[in-house]
Amino acid sequence: MNQDYIKPDEWSIIEEGFDKENVKSSESIFSIGNGAMGQRANFEEQYSGDTFQGSYIAGVYYPDKTRVGWWKNGYPEYFAKVLNAPNWIGINVLVNGEPLDLNTCKKVDGFRRELNMKEGWYQRKFRAVTPNDIKLDVNVTRFLSLDIDEVGAIKYEIIPLDSDSEITFIPYLDSGITNEDTNWDDKFWNTTNVRSEGAQAFIESHTLKTNFGVCTFMESRLFLQDRMVEEEISEEQKELWVGHRYTLKVGKGQTATLHKFGGYTVSRNHKSTELVDAAKKVLQKATDIGFDELLAKQKASWGKIWDMSDITIEGDTKAQQGIRFNIFHLNQTYLGRDSRLNIGPKGFTGEKYGGSTYWDTEAYCIPFYMATKDQKVARNLLKYRYNHLEKAIENAQKLGFSNGAALYPMVTMNGEECHNEWEITFEEIHRNGAIAFAIYNYYRYTGDYTYIPEMGLEVLIGISRFWHQRATFSQQKEKYVILGVTGPNEYENNVNNNWYTNYLAKWCINFTVEQLNKVKDGYPDDYKRIVGLTKLNDREIGQWQKVADNLYFPYSKEKEVYLQQDGFLDKELITVADLPKSQRPINQKWSWDRILRSPYIKQADTLQGFYLFESDFTLDELERHFDFYEPFTVHESSLSPCVHSIQAAKLNRMEQAYQFYLRTSRLDLDDYNKEVEEGLHITSMAGTWMSIVEGFAGMRVIDDKLSFVPRIPKQWKGYSFKINFRKRILKVIVSSGQTRFELDGKEEISIRVNGKRVVVSPDHPAVVKVE
Amino acid sequence: MNQDYIKPDEWSIIEEGFDKENVKSSESIFSIGNGAMGQRANFEEQYSGDTFQGSYIAGVYYPDKTRVGWWKNGYPEYFAKVLNAPNWIGINVLVNGEPLDLNTCKKVDGFRRELNMKEGWYQRKFRAVTPNDIKLDVNVTRFLSLDIDEVGAIKYEIIPLDSDSEITFIPYLDSGITNEDTNWDDKFWNTTNVRSEGAQAFIESHTLKTNFGVCTFMESRLFLQDRMVEEEISEEQKELWVGHRYTLKVGKGQTATLHKFGGYTVSRNHKSTELVDAAKKVLQKATDIGFDELLAKQKASWGKIWDMSDITIEGDTKAQQGIRFNIFHLNQTYLGRDSRLNIGPKGFTGEKYGGSTYWDTEAYCIPFYMATKDQKVARNLLKYRYNHLEKAIENAQKLGFSNGAALYPMVTMNGEECHNEWEITFEEIHRNGAIAFAIYNYYRYTGDYTYIPEMGLEVLIGISRFWHQRATFSQQKEKYVILGVTGPNEYENNVNNNWYTNYLAKWCINFTVEQLNKVKDGYPDDYKRIVGLTKLNDREIGQWQKVADNLYFPYSKEKEVYLQQDGFLDKELITVADLPKSQRPINQKWSWDRILRSPYIKQADTLQGFYLFESDFTLDELERHFDFYEPFTVHESSLSPCVHSIQAAKLNRMEQAYQFYLRTSRLDLDDYNKEVEEGLHITSMAGTWMSIVEGFAGMRVIDDKLSFVPRIPKQWKGYSFKINFRKRILKVIVSSGQTRFELDGKEEISIRVNGKRVVVSPDHPAVVKVE
Repeated sequence: MNQDYIKPDEWSIIEEGFDKENVKSSESIFSIGNGAMGQRANFEEQYSGDTFQGSYIAGVYYPDKTRVGWWKNGYPEYFAKVLNAPNWIGINVLVNGEPLDLNTCKKVDGFRRELNMKEGWYQRKFRAVTPNDIKLDVNVTRFLSLDIDEVGAIKYEIIPLDSDSEITFIPYLDSGITNEDTNWDDKFWNTTNVRSEGAQAFIESHTLKTNFGVCTFMESRLFLQDRMVEEEISEEQKELWVGHRYTLKVGKGQTATLHKFGGYTVSRNHKSTELVDAAKKVLQKATDIGFDELLAKQKASWGKIWDMSDITIEGDTKAQQGIRFNIFHLNQTYLGRDSRLNIGPKGFTGEKYGGSTYWDTEAYCIPFYMATKDQKVARNLLKYRYNHLEKAIENAQKLGFSNGAALYPMVTMNGEECHNEWEITFEEIHRNGAIAFAIYNYYRYTGDYTYIPEMGLEVLIGISRFWHQRATFSQQKEKYVILGVTGPNEYENNVNNNWYTNYLAKWCINFTVEQLNKVKDGYPDDYKRIVGLTKLNDREIGQWQKVADNLYFPYSKEKEVYLQQDGFLDKELITVADLPKSQRPINQKWSWDRILRSPYIKQADTLQGFYLFESDFTLDELERHFDFYEPFTVHESSLSPCVHSIQAAKLNRMEQAYQFYLRTSRLDLDDYNKEVEEGLHITSMAGTWMSIVEGFAGMRVIDDKLSFVPRIPKQWKGYSFKINFRKRILKVIVSSGQTRFELDGKEEISIRVNGKRVVVSPDHPAVVKVE
Repeated sequence: MNQDYIKPDEWSIIEEGFDKENVKSSESIFSIGNGAMGQRANFEEQYSGDTFQGSYIAGVYYPDKTRVGWWKNGYPEYFAKVLNAPNWIGINVLVNGEPLDLNTCKKVDGFRRELNMKEGWYQRKFRAVTPNDIKLDVNVTRFLSLDIDEVGAIKYEIIPLDSDSEITFIPYLDSGITNEDTNWDDKFWNTTNVRSEGAQAFIESHTLKTNFGVCTFMESRLFLQDRMVEEEISEEQKELWVGHRYTLKVGKGQTATLHKFGGYTVSRNHKSTELVDAAKKVLQKATDIGFDELLAKQKASWGKIWDMSDITIEGDTKAQQGIRFNIFHLNQTYLGRDSRLNIGPKGFTGEKYGGSTYWDTEAYCIPFYMATKDQKVARNLLKYRYNHLEKAIENAQKLGFSNGAALYPMVTMNGEECHNEWEITFEEIHRNGAIAFAIYNYYRYTGDYTYIPEMGLEVLIGISRFWHQRATFSQQKEKYVILGVTGPNEYENNVNNNWYTNYLAKWCINFTVEQLNKVKDGYPDDYKRIVGLTKLNDREIGQWQKVADNLYFPYSKEKEVYLQQDGFLDKELITVADLPKSQRPINQKWSWDRILRSPYIKQADTLQGFYLFESDFTLDELERHFDFYEPFTVHESSLSPCVHSIQAAKLNRMEQAYQFYLRTSRLDLDDYNKEVEEGLHITSMAGTWMSIVEGFAGMRVIDDKLSFVPRIPKQWKGYSFKINFRKRILKVIVSSGQTRFELDGKEEISIRVNGKRVVVSPDHPAVVKVE
């Protein structure tokens, strides 16, 4: 770990003491979001120290012109950048006319940040002595409303401690913002209107190129000792900035408070011409409710989220804090209300990577959302890809595929590929398989077949067409081969017959053919529509099947393992344990060619296949492959430890499983990768949830039934979680001696625990003792 | 071909008629150079049409900050850019006060460019009607002196045809120039002094970062009807510009002439503080000689070059023009006088690619320079790499190698790597082998062994150390393997066991060990010095030898061919002939991944090995490999056809050999690749020479003797060339019935022709009839 200043606490993230070195890290860690917008934990008042400003609006992006060294045919024209949006949180503060700035205060005591995850708010407190020797207490509370998701609210309190003071609040809006991550220093925003109306102010701007219209708005109320002060507002306006000045004499020990409501109305949800009106409606609603009541609603709304998605851990506060931190940020990032949105790798906590959608969604996030939300949330995530099918077909066409073959993008905002590194963009095609697998996984888990005839089958057809065309016949091997790919292990590029990719390809085709038959039988109208639309015929299906039936899989008879790719055994097979510590992480210490010719694995690759298609292999096979590949795995991707943790648990290697779990659960809190300043690893947070539910508790869906093999790390006294399985809520409480299953609802449910049938009814929790 | 406006002529390149569309192409084709400086064929006078300005100084470059999409460890910080230097050729012309500009003239007749290759000058003539209706003849002659290589000379003549006119010449210097090829629009030059002294002017500037000091200078003389006019000069000066204004009344039919001398003195050759003084000395020398006399010297100097390097072709004017064009540009680019210089891929004709030195020098250019120049020219090219040995060791260290292993750069100016595409920079390591091979080739050809003990052996040791470390042991194959490379065929990336690379690696080690033994025996002092310096011992040599003796070579028993790399036979082996024309060139029509998984070969790869190590293989083996690989070769590199032409000739497939020859000899004149605007393909021009000498004439050096197997394309009546072999000059005259060998000098020489011994003496030319 690289930092340990976060205080252990079961429900809150807490920082105590002001350290300028931690400001940017904390800005990431204490970020808040409500699925529609997000805000790094930047200070409201002026701060002249080192900071990374970030305000983000879901779905609003800029297509930044691609930058490469050497252009390769097929590169996309742009990279979709997550945009820093106009600032609505700003409140400059003057104390007797001098600006309050934590970077210049003579003294800062009792500085404390708290991100209260249980209730969904962020608070910052400190006692400062200003350069003009005024001593004061400051308490700031901020949240982004779950109930009115276009608005955020700030309560900013100041208490002069030693003397009466003149306090000035200048709440403002600012569209003169920049992006840290830009290729060509382009201007991303154009501001068309800056105005003030009484206690309200508005900035209308739109993104260049994509032309997303955004009205950034605010309204403030001033209080002295909890009594609202009707003061005349003095307006200040610049080209890209509008502020209101509130000045107040505050007696020693008295509290001056500003309530500020602000946020964004966006042309994604309103007519472009009605953004200001929409903003006024939002402000009306928010101010009618008021700060305290809106906060009360916030607590209730987060209560509901936690009721379903919480995981408790007994006997390990840091583990408890870690898992809740992950669950909290996942919920801040994506709530599943809008099928046009997805789960960005940094959520609303930074700009790095750009785009909103990676295969992370299908491979890592969907299980979490399926189990902890209404099933239509996962369906929305699937629908997102259905909506992008046409773009996926265009992506494939750009790479020379035809006949409706679909290649989903590596990174996207609107379905268009915007990643530009040939070895990833063009070759990391296994992403297509994860999207198909998610369709299967959704049906397996929810039992809702309707998605397949309605939408999923078209996606599957496009994907199968891609695999069919991408495989080529090797006369030499008398088998179909898939050449020139990059697997999930991105420390290999342009390899042949990556086992995971080949396995997925075969599976995709078989699964598609199976669904074609099921839809033909069960949903003849849909079948007719789809066949008409795709012009699919039996001859083509036969060609797919020929590829699937004759695909090549590299295998070593000697080692009795499938090979990650052709030629893997030609490498110098020195395990990670035998690699000097000074050489790691290899992605920082080694040149790229050295990484490529080494056997080292960035994240599960062959083992990713054993994870997704577990039931195709025996436990012996899993063990053999795990013992072969894990020793070469450097886990230099945040997505790596969770899969290994789940497999180690399955192999009953609980100590190893627990070690992997630790690496994922506090990755950002303890800043393992020295990069938390840039934002959090949102998608890998879902892997942490999987480590507990699928790993320690061994949850699976087998033959339409939930199945568990509960285990517990020896460091814990117990843990519990809830699962929404086909509209029944099952609570699983694991302790070292037994596992208890409690059920909400009316009907009983039959599950399997350690291979044996167990019936749980609402009235009769089941308790299964350790054997 | 994409253009055919160049008139066929045996000794000149000629363009007739003014076509604005051809201006940029002609600026490349009519470029002039003298090894120390170069100049695109830009107009002297103002031109408001589309143009690509380029003035270049040998060895003066700018380290432009690297631009990549995604940084990989090991990438160099900069890319060395060939710099557009301050303009010394400019002469603005006013006719009755109106600027002369070919883009705005009412009429342009009789426009003619001639690049007289025999005499080394460039001339432009035209008759124009200016916008103010003055009709005039303009004749401009320009050359860069071979005799005083810091100076160029221009004679600019104007003849008003219909009326007396006032003619103003404004010769100027301009350092306000830009580069077409810049990564970040950095400023490359800083100008510190602009001044005029009588008829002379000077601009002092230096490159940023590299701090090359350059004084750009000029001096002009005005003539009316060949009589010098002592006119008062009016000076004009701006921040980065200085000009002199000469105005003259010119009677109808009279000739006004300006002689302008200009050029560069550079801190590479003078003290930085003495550049102006040096410039004054150069101007003194040039003006003392005068334009006409300097031109006469130029003709004589080029006469000497041609006497040795000319190839004549009878019965095919375009072929004759093509080969002379290539020989001419090679000599304009590099004369071998300065071992700090090398042969840039675009010479002095454009900016693309940057850097000056690629493996092209060793693989393609050295044979030409060895055979047509004094042998110290080739030795200087070898010495260039010896001087960079330390940098090559640093390059290898950056990639994780140790113990003095040397990896020569893919592209360089000063020995540091400056290419930045991992699949080339880090993986195209066969370049190291070409550098070792050139040492062998130099000794084989010249018989001068001294280079090896003096310098070459140290280079060979560094290279062998690299190969030893770069190979790894495959338990599976029980052989050493070389993983993750890119061969000469850059349409494959990150492949394992590229046969060519492996073959070179083995050869390098064996050759090095052989030389170690020879030096130990024959040059014990050098041996002692080198062993002391490199700390080489027998144990280490034993380790190298173990790698060389146990290196793996992919081979197909079925096809009886070595495989280009592991897995080559898994590809879809559709020949180029069966590829639709619409799909070509694949580097423009296909995405990169598709190119990579195809069998298509950009340039000779396995066959490059058969070219370099011809004597290791039988004719049958060559034929089998040629017939296997050539059908998959798309020849999309300018370096591809020559090797295939040589091999086709050896296989007695003269029609095919001739077709390959055509693709190389007029590549730029006929603009096959639609890119001649950007500059010429200088290094591949040496390949054209090889196609005739090694291909058609079958010249080899075998056991210290020249050997020939003369053949002639049926399209030609005859051809001839001269060879400097170990200080004897042999002229080879091939016609369809016989080959005649003439010898300069005193001693007789014994050669082999068609396998039989032939003795040529100065008095008795040998004539070998066709059998």
